[in-house]
Amino acid sequence: MTKFCITILGCGSAMPTTLHNPPSQLIEMNDKLFMIDCGEGTQLQMRKFKARMSKLHSVFISHLHGDHIFGLPGLLSTLSLLGRTADLNIYAHKEIDFLINPFLTYMGNHISFKINVIPINPHSEEIIFENSSIKIHSFPLNHRIDSNGFLFEEKKSASHIIREMIDYHKIPYHMIYNIKRGDDFITTEGDVIKNETLTVPGTPSKKYAYCSDTAYDPDVVKYIKNVDLLYHEATFAESENKRAEETYHSTASQAATIAKMAEVKKLVIGHFSSRYNELGVLLKEASLIFPETELASEGKIFEL
Amino acid sequence: MTKFCITILGCGSAMPTTLHNPPSQLIEMNDKLFMIDCGEGTQLQMRKFKARMSKLHSVFISHLHGDHIFGLPGLLSTLSLLGRTADLNIYAHKEIDFLINPFLTYMGNHISFKINVIPINPHSEEIIFENSSIKIHSFPLNHRIDSNGFLFEEKKSASHIIREMIDYHKIPYHMIYNIKRGDDFITTEGDVIKNETLTVPGTPSKKYAYCSDTAYDPDVVKYIKNVDLLYHEATFAESENKRAEETYHSTASQAATIAKMAEVKKLVIGHFSSRYNELGVLLKEASLIFPETELASEGKIFEL
Repeated sequence: MTKFCITILGCGSAMPTTLHNPPSQLIEMNDKLFMIDCGEGTQLQMRKFKARMSKLHSVFISHLHGDHIFGLPGLLSTLSLLGRTADLNIYAHKEIDFLINPFLTYMGNHISFKINVIPINPHSEEIIFENSSIKIHSFPLNHRIDSNGFLFEEKKSASHIIREMIDYHKIPYHMIYNIKRGDDFITTEGDVIKNETLTVPGTPSKKYAYCSDTAYDPDVVKYIKNVDLLYHEATFAESENKRAEETYHSTASQAATIAKMAEVKKLVIGHFSSRYNELGVLLKEASLIFPETELASEGKIFEL
Repeated sequence: MTKFCITILGCGSAMPTTLHNPPSQLIEMNDKLFMIDCGEGTQLQMRKFKARMSKLHSVFISHLHGDHIFGLPGLLSTLSLLGRTADLNIYAHKEIDFLINPFLTYMGNHISFKINVIPINPHSEEIIFENSSIKIHSFPLNHRIDSNGFLFEEKKSASHIIREMIDYHKIPYHMIYNIKRGDDFITTEGDVIKNETLTVPGTPSKKYAYCSDTAYDPDVVKYIKNVDLLYHEATFAESENKRAEETYHSTASQAATIAKMAEVKKLVIGHFSSRYNELGVLLKEASLIFPETELASEGKIFEL
C-alpha cells in the first residue's frame, strides 16, 4: 500500500492563539492530498510544512463555523495564482454558498479552475468519494449546527498469490488476476484447488476517522469502528464538562471513551480551547481511559 | 505628544510565503490602534506581536484584492468572541459589501458589535477621520483597481507659554489657554504683548503615509509631502520593471524616487513579491536614490 498519513495544520478552536492555528489537516493517500477543514491561515501552514499545493485533490468541510472555513478564500486565490486548472471539489453543507458564491462573483474571470461545491448529508452516513483505491464517507456528528465527520478508507487490496503454487499447479498467466481477487483454480483435469491454498491475504486496508466538532455522542461509534487512527475533538478538560455540554463540544475523557467503545487502534485529540496553554491535563485525562492517545500539534504527521 | 508608531503585521504581496504574511499594519496614535489592510492571518499576527485587540479603533482598506482583505472575517469573528461592544468603522471602497454583507448575514445575531462600512473616495483626497488630536486622509493611488493611500497626521499641538512671562506680565490664569493658541496679551494698561514673545512653538506634529498598492505615480507626491515616515510598496527590483508596469506595482527605486520627490524623512519599503527570498537587492536599489530607506519586516516597529 502507498503512503497514508495525516498532517495537522491547525488543532486550535474558535479563538486562535500563538500556540494553535484554527482547524485544518491534510490526508495524504495515493499521492493525493485531501484537506479537512480550512481555518484562517491554512495556506500559510501548508507553506510552512512544505505541503505541495499542486497535490491538493479536494476539500472536506466538517461544518460552517468560521474557524473551519475562513482560510478558503485565501487558499482558492492562491491556487488560482499558481495556475491550477483541475476542478476542485469542496464537500460541505450546502449553506457554504454564502462564502463561495460572493467569492466567485467577486473574482469574476480571474479564477483559473472550476470549484464544485458538493453538498454533504448532515443526517446520515454516505459515501461521498470513491475511486479504485480509496473510499471516503461522511457521517453525522452532534454539534450546535450541522456537522459531519469523515472516514478515509483504503480499499481492501487484492490477495498475494503464492509463487510456488503457480509453478506447482502450472497456473496460466491469464488466470492469476482473478485468483488474486478470490477465484479458485480449476485444473485441466477438473480438480478444484481452493483459493485459500493459493494465496495469502493482501496488505490490510487502513482507516482514518475525523470527528470534530461534536458533543460526546456514542451514536458516532458505529461509523468509526476499528479505525487505525481516530482524530476526535477534546476541546475541554473534565473540569469544564458543563461548558462542553452547553457548547456541544467534548472533553478529553469523552473523546477517549468514544475511542475505547469504537475499539480504534490509536486516538489523536485536538481542537483545544484557547484557555489551555499546557495540554498535559487533557492528555492525562484521555490516557486514563484510552492509553493509546496522543496530542495533536501543528506540523505533526501521523503515518498509518 | 503621545506615542505614534507603526507595527508591520505583514509586508508580503498576493502570494504568501514562509517569510512574509499578506499586508497589514497597525498605527498606534493616542493609545488607539488603527489598522491598515487585513490580509489572511492578520489576527494571528496581532496575537504573535501582542497587539491589544481591545484597542482596535478602526480599519482602513487600501483596495479590495484578496491579500488585503481576507483576514477580515476571522478578525471580526474574534472581536465578537471577545465581546467587543464598540462600533467598528471600516473605511474601504464600497464594493467591500461583497465580503461584509454575506458575513453579517451568515453570522446573524452572533456578532456583538456594529460594523459601519464607510466608503472612501477613489478619485480625490478626503479627510476620512478627525478628532481633537488626529486627522486621517485618504488619497487616490494608481493600481489595476481602485486603490487609496492613507495619511495619518497628528494635529499641531498648542504652543508652550513661557513660565517667566506669565509672572513678568502678571498674565491671569484664564487667559493662558488662548495665548497658547496664538492670542496676543493685552495688559490692563492697553499694551499689546506679541504672542511670539510669550510662547515657544509646541511639539511639531508628525505624519505617516501609506502607499500600497500602486504603480509609480508622481501625482501622489502632493499628498505625502514632508511626511516623517512613508511606507511605499516596492514589489519588484529594477530588473522586473516591465512586470511592475504591467501589474501597476512599483520597483524599489521607483518607491525611493517618490520618497525623494516628496522630501520625506524616512522611507520603509514593503509588499515584496514572493520571488525574493533575499531583499538586499531591493534595499540597495532604493538606498542609491534615497539613503534613508529601511526594509519592512513582520513585527518591526517604526516609532515617529
